[in-house]
Amino acid sequence: MGKKYVYFFGAGKAEGTGKMKDILGGKGAGLAEMTNIGLPVPAGFTISAEVCDYYYKNNRTYPEGLMEEVEANLKRLEEVTGKKFGDPSNPLLVSVRSGAAVSMPGMMDTILNLGINDEVVEGLAKLTNNPRFAYDAYRRFIQMFGDVVLGINKNEFEAVLEEKKKERGVQWDSELTVEDLKEIVKKFKEVYKKYGYEFPQDPRKQLDMAIEAVFKSWMNERAIKYREINDIKGLLGTAVNVVEMVFGNMGEDSGTGVGFTRNPNTGEKEFYAEFLPNAQGEDVVAGIRTPMKIDELKKRLPEVYDQLIKVAELLEKHYKDVQDIEFTVERGKLFLLQTRSAKRTGYAAVRIAVDMVKEGIITEKEAILRVQPSHLDQLLHPMIDPSEKYDDKVIAKGLPASPGAATGQVVFFAKDAEKWAKEGREVILLRPETSPEDIGGMHAAKGILTARGGLTSHAAVVARGMGKPCVVGCEDLIVDEEKKIAKTKDGKFTIKEGDWLTIDGKTGYVISGKLKLVKGEISGYFAEFMKWVDKYRKLGVRANAETPEDAKKAREFGAEGIGLARTEHMFFGPEKERILYFRSMIISDTYEERVKALNKLLEYQRKDFEELFEIMEGLPVTIRLLDPPLHEFLPHEEEQMKEVAKELGVPFEKIKERNEQLKEFNPMLGFRGCRLAIVYPEIYEMQVRAIFQAACNMKKKGKDVKLEVMIPIVAEVKEFAYLKKRLGQVAKEVMDKEGIQVDYKFGTMIEVPRAALTANEIAKEAEFFSFGTNDLTQMTFAFSRDDIGKFIGSYKSLNILEDDPFKTLDVKGVGQLIKIGIEKGRSVRPDLKVGICGEHGGDPASIMFCHKVRMDYVSASPFRVPIARLAAAQAAVLDEKGELPVD
Amino acid sequence: MGKKYVYFFGAGKAEGTGKMKDILGGKGAGLAEMTNIGLPVPAGFTISAEVCDYYYKNNRTYPEGLMEEVEANLKRLEEVTGKKFGDPSNPLLVSVRSGAAVSMPGMMDTILNLGINDEVVEGLAKLTNNPRFAYDAYRRFIQMFGDVVLGINKNEFEAVLEEKKKERGVQWDSELTVEDLKEIVKKFKEVYKKYGYEFPQDPRKQLDMAIEAVFKSWMNERAIKYREINDIKGLLGTAVNVVEMVFGNMGEDSGTGVGFTRNPNTGEKEFYAEFLPNAQGEDVVAGIRTPMKIDELKKRLPEVYDQLIKVAELLEKHYKDVQDIEFTVERGKLFLLQTRSAKRTGYAAVRIAVDMVKEGIITEKEAILRVQPSHLDQLLHPMIDPSEKYDDKVIAKGLPASPGAATGQVVFFAKDAEKWAKEGREVILLRPETSPEDIGGMHAAKGILTARGGLTSHAAVVARGMGKPCVVGCEDLIVDEEKKIAKTKDGKFTIKEGDWLTIDGKTGYVISGKLKLVKGEISGYFAEFMKWVDKYRKLGVRANAETPEDAKKAREFGAEGIGLARTEHMFFGPEKERILYFRSMIISDTYEERVKALNKLLEYQRKDFEELFEIMEGLPVTIRLLDPPLHEFLPHEEEQMKEVAKELGVPFEKIKERNEQLKEFNPMLGFRGCRLAIVYPEIYEMQVRAIFQAACNMKKKGKDVKLEVMIPIVAEVKEFAYLKKRLGQVAKEVMDKEGIQVDYKFGTMIEVPRAALTANEIAKEAEFFSFGTNDLTQMTFAFSRDDIGKFIGSYKSLNILEDDPFKTLDVKGVGQLIKIGIEKGRSVRPDLKVGICGEHGGDPASIMFCHKVRMDYVSASPFRVPIARLAAAQAAVLDEKGELPVD
Repeated sequence: MGKKYVYFFGAGKAEGTGKMKDILGGKGAGLAEMTNIGLPVPAGFTISAEVCDYYYKNNRTYPEGLMEEVEANLKRLEEVTGKKFGDPSNPLLVSVRSGAAVSMPGMMDTILNLGINDEVVEGLAKLTNNPRFAYDAYRRFIQMFGDVVLGINKNEFEAVLEEKKKERGVQWDSELTVEDLKEIVKKFKEVYKKYGYEFPQDPRKQLDMAIEAVFKSWMNERAIKYREINDIKGLLGTAVNVVEMVFGNMGEDSGTGVGFTRNPNTGEKEFYAEFLPNAQGEDVVAGIRTPMKIDELKKRLPEVYDQLIKVAELLEKHYKDVQDIEFTVERGKLFLLQTRSAKRTGYAAVRIAVDMVKEGIITEKEAILRVQPSHLDQLLHPMIDPSEKYDDKVIAKGLPASPGAATGQVVFFAKDAEKWAKEGREVILLRPETSPEDIGGMHAAKGILTARGGLTSHAAVVARGMGKPCVVGCEDLIVDEEKKIAKTKDGKFTIKEGDWLTIDGKTGYVISGKLKLVKGEISGYFAEFMKWVDKYRKLGVRANAETPEDAKKAREFGAEGIGLARTEHMFFGPEKERILYFRSMIISDTYEERVKALNKLLEYQRKDFEELFEIMEGLPVTIRLLDPPLHEFLPHEEEQMKEVAKELGVPFEKIKERNEQLKEFNPMLGFRGCRLAIVYPEIYEMQVRAIFQAACNMKKKGKDVKLEVMIPIVAEVKEFAYLKKRLGQVAKEVMDKEGIQVDYKFGTMIEVPRAALTANEIAKEAEFFSFGTNDLTQMTFAFSRDDIGKFIGSYKSLNILEDDPFKTLDVKGVGQLIKIGIEKGRSVRPDLKVGICGEHGGDPASIMFCHKVRMDYVSASPFRVPIARLAAAQAAVLDEKGELPVD
Repeated sequence: MGKKYVYFFGAGKAEGTGKMKDILGGKGAGLAEMTNIGLPVPAGFTISAEVCDYYYKNNRTYPEGLMEEVEANLKRLEEVTGKKFGDPSNPLLVSVRSGAAVSMPGMMDTILNLGINDEVVEGLAKLTNNPRFAYDAYRRFIQMFGDVVLGINKNEFEAVLEEKKKERGVQWDSELTVEDLKEIVKKFKEVYKKYGYEFPQDPRKQLDMAIEAVFKSWMNERAIKYREINDIKGLLGTAVNVVEMVFGNMGEDSGTGVGFTRNPNTGEKEFYAEFLPNAQGEDVVAGIRTPMKIDELKKRLPEVYDQLIKVAELLEKHYKDVQDIEFTVERGKLFLLQTRSAKRTGYAAVRIAVDMVKEGIITEKEAILRVQPSHLDQLLHPMIDPSEKYDDKVIAKGLPASPGAATGQVVFFAKDAEKWAKEGREVILLRPETSPEDIGGMHAAKGILTARGGLTSHAAVVARGMGKPCVVGCEDLIVDEEKKIAKTKDGKFTIKEGDWLTIDGKTGYVISGKLKLVKGEISGYFAEFMKWVDKYRKLGVRANAETPEDAKKAREFGAEGIGLARTEHMFFGPEKERILYFRSMIISDTYEERVKALNKLLEYQRKDFEELFEIMEGLPVTIRLLDPPLHEFLPHEEEQMKEVAKELGVPFEKIKERNEQLKEFNPMLGFRGCRLAIVYPEIYEMQVRAIFQAACNMKKKGKDVKLEVMIPIVAEVKEFAYLKKRLGQVAKEVMDKEGIQVDYKFGTMIEVPRAALTANEIAKEAEFFSFGTNDLTQMTFAFSRDDIGKFIGSYKSLNILEDDPFKTLDVKGVGQLIKIGIEKGRSVRPDLKVGICGEHGGDPASIMFCHKVRMDYVSASPFRVPIARLAAAQAAVLDEKGELPVD
């Protein structure tokens, strides 16, 4: 005999178990498990998802022997139920349902009441003594079979039904008589003929056709789309569940319902369910009748209600998690049709996890795995009020760059954002893309929307850093800055300055108008939960922050230091002089002029660092010296250039010329970071002077300063060694003068492939590594994070890339370089401190990898710190279990 | 006793040998070797270059015991010569000369006649019976010592001399009397005092000071500069040679000369030398007196002449190479002062190598190592006539991008270049930078000069491909296209349209005016030499070529196939429709419109490929499908956009909008190559259709076609697999229709780090790899080849990088990725064909590496094919000897 493809369940025993989701699907595994633990489940069998996999890999054919196996199981089902397929005197009816390992509600097909034909319907009528029920089931079956299996437009059937109701002058299906239904059945069969089909009278044939239809539905458009949107991948396909029908529509002692073992919105411990008497499950789904609160069942069938409560408790204890169940009552008898872990809000997830630990149902470690990192995201950001309906108001969709929703009036320039905000207005800053100059406006805005750029574009990175909702790369919009309007590509919608707009940084939706927002709350449950998280994680968690606000926020969110303070951000605010001095440094022609301008900046930088050291007292602070190319600090529009020329008191041509000189073909690969410092060492020397002066001043005040100075874009050890030597001298000079010894390290970003490849040389000089995975990903793939929008969509839909590598670390390529870097680095300096400060430092899947390669810490934007802490804890727990999901 | 630092030679025996250049320097090693083979060499000793190394590594101090060692050798020298240092009755005089392992003529210091003082001069006068000679030697020594050792401005001494001559009313030094000289010596001593010095009377003190002066001269400015310019690196420092003085100025039976054992310009076998009677070597160097042809020596001192000829023959046989010698005749006695391998022209190098094999002096393999790849470069390109003097006309210096010199009138636009060239004028195209649009103008120009861009910028790559002289990244120039002028940064020089300019693509010089050029010739010697080259090399050599002219040139130069045919170049000419159709494809909004435009292009492409297959018949042709981003094909200036809009019959706004849409932040990391093809597969499908149609047509004509289709910018195997599948279907379709089976392979460029890192996956699908080291270098370093000019100068002068990595392959980083790529690739496909098609494929040092990692072939621009063949042969020969210079 070959491979086993079909798994039977019934009469208190199942061949499958709850753990076999991969091949039985969630539904099949649930039915098997419930059968095994003695719950009332209708009998049936599950055809493995491996068949689906085979089907698509073998030109839509089945593995050999499958049909014989189905036949044998059908026999067994007949034995267990005592009914017979196609036997009018005691007919077996079945449902044929899809069910993949991951729930995809409503996306694939299901056929109910299968097994009825012209003879069986008569038998059923006699047997139930309810001809109306029998013919209603028959017409439903024909309709469903026609729609689902043969693809006949269901409106054709609806039209027949409507015509009959009109003819009979009634409003509801339930008002139709048996005779009406018989006629309808006849007409339905004619619809089949119109489409060139004959309704199959042979139940075996019905079954075979239904099974294949379910397999086919795995690849229907909406299922593919759903998997894409929800990032569901790696599944074999759908399983097919063939289950004895039970009927909730056999009268007032029958009914159907769905429920949660706890409240999935609040997490409160209460049975949270709805019930519809005398109905089949599909009636609930279709929303034709409004279900009742579960209390109604208690009144009507108290015994069934009690049994249901017990079942719920049993299931929750058994699965150690909140369950989402479906049940049917047939003539006073309870049947469970499905159980699965309940989807829940972030708030509920945390509360349930904490409560269950206290109730002794799960351990702390299990609780850690029970809350998804994205759940915490919900807790920390405002979202659109779930009661808002806005499907028809979505005008565009971009990349979801920074979670949370925001609503405000549109402005097109950063300056306007600042101005309007000062006037007390709420604004959404809409830009083609943002640059460091826009920081002020981004700060002032409630949310940021850009037409271009990817998930690690400037706008995205900065917005996440600020914890501000942001949608980027919204290529549906064509922005005309001059006219202060943006049009959708299809020309249907125009956004003007001052228009109200709502953006959802979690979905990428851009919605016209002002929607109501609600803020998720954090509470004692959160604090308690995070205590366990910190208890089990091995990775340190730091924050990327440079402003006092961000640093404070980071510490509040549990950051254990700063992993990346981007000094260039400090040149943009708050005082206007900062950028002025920096710009006058840029346009200087001589070393002396540059030093003069830099010395003016030094005061501001020192103040910045003093504040940072004070806030992060006792924790390490990694300060990255200037990174971006200089042209990013000059304006590029003629108007603005003229303004700057005026401010600096130099001719406009001077600014234009310098801009021209600094222009680069590929700025990302250009004159930046340590390269700038090697040509103009005075820039880093000023920064290091400011840093050490600040550190000395803080130490004088008795503050504990742990300083890490980081040099970016190193590709060759000699770059680092040269600068370390020069900057070390400056540091020594300051410390000698102040008579104070600062606890400091010099280290480097590893963000260029060559740095990873030559890490054994670099680590001889550098005392710590911080993987800058944004740049490292760019170089490893040769993908510009700002330009990837032009093709990443096609790549994902063609399955060429499973993830956007700027969102989730590419373990195979970039990860390989990281591994090489860490191994080579530690081969010469075993105590080398290693962290990550790219955007991936806040991405749960990437954090698993960081744990695996034994980094010391991850660093994420302040708002992602709790998420990173949780992901790090999950990595540790999974690692202990040998289940770390990274190859 | 410690390490040995001093090596003695004299009396027919030397402690050193000719192989010890590293520590004895070229001069010291030559003296030792000549002594050992019995030639007449004055005795002396060499202080090792290791002392120089120590000196600079230890704060300008000597290793312990050095002075004792010098003392001992001085004693020995006295014994061997029978003279005594400082002894007026029989004084030993010495020269103290620099000499590093690599010749740096005139860059470091030398002191002659050392050992004279007030007493010794008198003794010398008596001993030689020639007081004039003695005092002349004394005044020369004081002058030289003051200048070289103490840094006293030599004009001070010259002034004394001139004054005396004026006073005496004579023109020549030689007209001065002994009394005059005595007075001059007195006045020279006063000059010393004026500078706060006392002339040291103690010869030992003179010696110590002179030795240190020579060591110091290793780090004088001009020596540092010379090493930088000539790319001399990795040396320990200079050695110091202390050698008994012999005097060519002791009368008419004395003299001095220099010579070559063969003609270094033509390679002809003749003793090629000059001689100056009654003179010291410095007189020859100073150019005060014009030397005579060597025949004069034959007349004057026939025995010495015969001895010299024998010595020359002996030296050549001994060193197995042409020697450049210095000699002195002291009273009829010949002394050899120096021998070294002679510098020679490319033409001479080849001829000498061939002749020496025929004469049985060297083997074919040795001959291969004797010709430098750059020698061949000289043979193939025109150069500035060596008789031209133009030092004062050099107005700027850029990067030497493509060898050869060119002269012409300046134009600022490609179109003007074409127009002027049609009118029969010779033009130099001067652009800020070039783009594919400029190809026509580049072709029409004699040479290309750009203000921006690196050695692998568009201008550089294309010019090399065309074998056209080119200077790029000439940042000294500020180009104002609008006004059609270019200014030097210092404002001193303005180039206007129509001005004559000469550029030297070998040095990077930009010279005002029209200089005379000469063309190197190739001859039978070249052909014979290249036969040996091909006999020994292991690497295949192909060419990067796509035009029929280039392909023909490549085959003529010995290319064994095409390693890279860049199909995008074909869209730019010769017919105007090509670019028109391609542009209309770009601005199309629908698949149908795109296909329509592409189908028009197909005809042209097919014709291109047919030609290519015909020219390269029997040899493999690797065709790379479209690589650059689409915006490179659209104009970016408003004027030109309007023109194109008119040509295409679309509104200007359409062009502008598409330009805006296609704009990229970092085009190098953008929407190009296979990424474009995945989103718009129709582009590659057209190209593949054209390729296979062309191949079938050629096969019908009985031509042997060996096709390799190459997909660029692959970062992930799924990109390649997806396209291979789609394109394979197109290929099959064409072949099925034509009923012809083409011999073809699908392969990929490895130019993205991730491709190298995942080569084991990619090689499962790809049948060949071609390393695109231009891009791979960009990504590995995160250096934009077009922007590197802003810092590469500082990097090289600070010794952070030894070479421009775009010129010479970075073995440590990029090479590591290549090794990983080859190993991983061959681990799954042992017969994987591997080549390189970046610019490094034509760079000799990089070719050594390609040989080492066992590539199958290198591919270079046609003009570099002979160079690549030679480098490949040298790699094979060196490998056999275990001397491959790659770690």
